[in-house]
Amino acid sequence: MSSRVLVLGAGMIGSAAALDLARTGFDVIIADTHRAALDAVTARAQVEGLQADLADPATVGRLARQADLVVGALPSVLGLQTLRAVIEAGRPCCDISFMPEHAWDLDGLARQHGVTAVVDCGVAPGVSNLLAGWAAARLQPCRTLEIYVGGLPLVRTWPFEYKAGFAPSDVLEEYTRPARLVDGREIVVREALSEPELMDFPGVGTLEAFNTDGLRSLAYLLDVPFMKEKTLRYPGHIALMRVLREMGLFSKDWLLVPGEHGPQRVRPLDVTSALMFPKWRFGPGEADVTVLRVIATGTEEGREVRHVWDLVDRYDTATDTRSMSRTTGYAATSMVTLMAAGAVKGPGVFPPELLARDPGFVERFLEEYAARGVEVEHRVETMG
Amino acid sequence: MSSRVLVLGAGMIGSAAALDLARTGFDVIIADTHRAALDAVTARAQVEGLQADLADPATVGRLARQADLVVGALPSVLGLQTLRAVIEAGRPCCDISFMPEHAWDLDGLARQHGVTAVVDCGVAPGVSNLLAGWAAARLQPCRTLEIYVGGLPLVRTWPFEYKAGFAPSDVLEEYTRPARLVDGREIVVREALSEPELMDFPGVGTLEAFNTDGLRSLAYLLDVPFMKEKTLRYPGHIALMRVLREMGLFSKDWLLVPGEHGPQRVRPLDVTSALMFPKWRFGPGEADVTVLRVIATGTEEGREVRHVWDLVDRYDTATDTRSMSRTTGYAATSMVTLMAAGAVKGPGVFPPELLARDPGFVERFLEEYAARGVEVEHRVETMG
Repeated sequence: MSSRVLVLGAGMIGSAAALDLARTGFDVIIADTHRAALDAVTARAQVEGLQADLADPATVGRLARQADLVVGALPSVLGLQTLRAVIEAGRPCCDISFMPEHAWDLDGLARQHGVTAVVDCGVAPGVSNLLAGWAAARLQPCRTLEIYVGGLPLVRTWPFEYKAGFAPSDVLEEYTRPARLVDGREIVVREALSEPELMDFPGVGTLEAFNTDGLRSLAYLLDVPFMKEKTLRYPGHIALMRVLREMGLFSKDWLLVPGEHGPQRVRPLDVTSALMFPKWRFGPGEADVTVLRVIATGTEEGREVRHVWDLVDRYDTATDTRSMSRTTGYAATSMVTLMAAGAVKGPGVFPPELLARDPGFVERFLEEYAARGVEVEHRVETMG
Repeated sequence: MSSRVLVLGAGMIGSAAALDLARTGFDVIIADTHRAALDAVTARAQVEGLQADLADPATVGRLARQADLVVGALPSVLGLQTLRAVIEAGRPCCDISFMPEHAWDLDGLARQHGVTAVVDCGVAPGVSNLLAGWAAARLQPCRTLEIYVGGLPLVRTWPFEYKAGFAPSDVLEEYTRPARLVDGREIVVREALSEPELMDFPGVGTLEAFNTDGLRSLAYLLDVPFMKEKTLRYPGHIALMRVLREMGLFSKDWLLVPGEHGPQRVRPLDVTSALMFPKWRFGPGEADVTVLRVIATGTEEGREVRHVWDLVDRYDTATDTRSMSRTTGYAATSMVTLMAAGAVKGPGVFPPELLARDPGFVERFLEEYAARGVEVEHRVETMG
């Protein structure tokens, strides 16, 4: 009997996950508030669509109890309450809501309910955490960890050379929220968009990396003295975003401006969003590319080594699936496959780096991921 | 007995003009709506300050009749009504309001009242028109005329490397209003900010020139088949302004955005202005530089020649007068001096290029201008 999986959210990533789970033999229910989003999925595969108010944790709990396993692909603001509802319903869960809170605060609750929950299971966070966890366990010691990630349009168009593969407001949040990184085991804070550096990626060209606040659980759970996470864009985008930020266009402070009926107050960010986000939307069939590079240095069998993982993935023409949906959604479905096969021990709440300590786990994950067309290249260099 | 000159407007340029006129022996009255602006001038020289509502043409007419000559230095929106009031009061006038309308539409009225009015008498329009008119009369024929002009901060500061020497809203207007230029005797339209080209200026460095709508009367009154006017900025400013324009930040169309009490409509240009203009303001004692280059080509005594005029003027530390005020205000006062000496024939409304046909006039003007510290270099090159 195939496992019954409930996918919460029929957005770009939830849909891609549901279709992949159906294709790989799971019995899939997908739930969403919007009928049209559900119809788009159910029209393409043997998937049950269920319209429901997922902002209500009681509804989430009721639906979860009808499934063997739950995939959480809701907006980040709903992430924590949804995970709690699924845990309380006693169902294992793989979450890709990228909630702002620390998901492992629910670890006690999960143990109490005997539930295994894997969180932050996309590409980065997600695959990056698995590779980081692998390096932290394998290298003795692991000295540095660097994660570079970006989702970009394949065709570069002036002036932004950027489209958002997820909520554009979350992108701007990345451009303003101070970035935390680990420097000599201390968590230090850098300005967002800071420390730009140019990096080459085969077939993609030169990209610009800058500090973002993306280490998340890694900063707390891995014992590696130097860690940083940077976001990748085509060169020039950052300089432009810095100017817009400097102008005050990302500000949430009320500003007095002339209105139709006298002076009125407006938040510059709202105006910027209204003008910019339509230009940041991928068009139908518009191709994207996802780039992930993880670099770990340390000592392995007495030698100083550098491990480098590269993922370069593109829009899939055959299934009209954007790379951001593929790399994120298939990370979740690869994990679900391992969970269903009993490869994830529990109970508890697990950011992926914790699973990577288990010998062979990351290798099995990468096999599942590759079976879905997302290849991660790995090379080891011996250092001077 | 010295002539009595009324200066309308105690802004940066009117003030500089009033002080210069007082220094050169005129009996000066300066009028403005704002007491503080008047006090700043009367504290520095033997000038009579007169608080009055200059938005009222009747008031302007009454004040004008008390003077021998009037300098119009009011905002451009008041330019035409003020010039009309001065003409109807029967007084000669030198105007630097840079009104959007065609001032010479009042030529008939001026002739009827026996009044001589010189308009657009700043640096560009102004000095540029005199040099263009000189070239159009001297070269037989004059084939091309190019005018390059910019007012810039001496110190370049990220991200704009720009401060506005006059109303910033008029600057943004220059960045959006289509530019008219003369191409084969036809008036053609180019997008504002278009056709950027790099040019070097001694002691200033490389500047970027782009099309603006600055030919004004030259496009109609000079018989030169190719004419263009471009604005100068430090390189990079234009690329940035093009992005902001592309984003819609210069738009005057109402945009729906979230407000404190539900959705509200706002004009992006109002938000941009509120955020940007404070950053475009010159600080006290902050130095500026004015750059003007006029290039004329044509046939002179059987040879193909190129005349090039260069003006590079800087903030005057001794008198704390910005270059934009000097170059504009002293163009007006140099003209007033020539008018008072009977060098400008009339009656009628004269953009400066029409005065340039009079042999020796431009040379006398440039002597007056140089006596005030603003030097225009002139060189002639013989072309291949």
